[in-house]
Amino acid sequence: MAAALELYDERGFEQTTVADIAERAGVTERTFFRHFGDKREVLFDRDGGLQTAFVEALAAAPADADAWTALAPALDAGCDFLADRRDHARRRQRVIDATPGLQERELLKLAALTAALTAGLRGRGLSELAAGVAAEAVVGAFRVAFTRWIDPAEDRDLRTVGRAALAELRAVVS
Amino acid sequence: MAAALELYDERGFEQTTVADIAERAGVTERTFFRHFGDKREVLFDRDGGLQTAFVEALAAAPADADAWTALAPALDAGCDFLADRRDHARRRQRVIDATPGLQERELLKLAALTAALTAGLRGRGLSELAAGVAAEAVVGAFRVAFTRWIDPAEDRDLRTVGRAALAELRAVVS
Repeated sequence: MAAALELYDERGFEQTTVADIAERAGVTERTFFRHFGDKREVLFDRDGGLQTAFVEALAAAPADADAWTALAPALDAGCDFLADRRDHARRRQRVIDATPGLQERELLKLAALTAALTAGLRGRGLSELAAGVAAEAVVGAFRVAFTRWIDPAEDRDLRTVGRAALAELRAVVS
Repeated sequence: MAAALELYDERGFEQTTVADIAERAGVTERTFFRHFGDKREVLFDRDGGLQTAFVEALAAAPADADAWTALAPALDAGCDFLADRRDHARRRQRVIDATPGLQERELLKLAALTAALTAGLRGRGLSELAAGVAAEAVVGAFRVAFTRWIDPAEDRDLRTVGRAALAELRAVVS
């Protein structure tokens, strides 16, 4: 994964082959394909770990907690999932920003996360409309916090920025 | 546009050619290409009218209005832009839902709208974080309201559903 990211960042995603990655990592192409279906999978959380972190934390919130109270630890859990990968996240984002086809994949992943959170909130008794807007707002806060977190000028950890994003949303809405 | 949508819906987007569309509409292919760069452009607001409606309404809000007060008429304007095209919107969505490459394009359009609203809110003095989360939340509310509006079981107009979405967001957050 590190070898692939280095090469995508140095040469561009399109210009990097699986053979290049295997060579840089000192493994065979066969070994690469035991771990990843293709070049794109290196960049995208193929096991859905981020989404699972969000959804499980939402499910773990007390059944009588209101939606906003239940969503805060879900956002925390999503942030914690990425917490120790800041350099990786920065490099990965440079590659995605430089490659339109990857931006689309990223947006599809976030749309899937929004749908999963909407389902979780529906399960807590929210209406379709309320669950949808709350899930959109929290995934939006996550996206904005993530973008801020990988900015070289930002020192705070992701969970702190995520919480600040929720606080800003509450301040704007109230 | 009507001929293209009919064909995309009947046969599938990938299976429809520009020649088919021109034939159905009773024009030449040359005429099609005077209006649209390619098959996809028929489905996507190529002049950015939706985004312009949002952004201009936000800019027209009193300078001393708080962000939430300024965003409500922006959402109204976005809703009004689509108001008289409900049947078109339903058919178009069926085509997009059936064609993964089109879903990505749709998400990119909404991401561009979010970025434009973020810039508008920055211009009203909001911090990067506050502007970002507010724009994400309002575009999220728009997306959820739109999905609800094109549901065959929904009778309310889009502006009414959009306002209801904002009210739900406020209720969840507060």
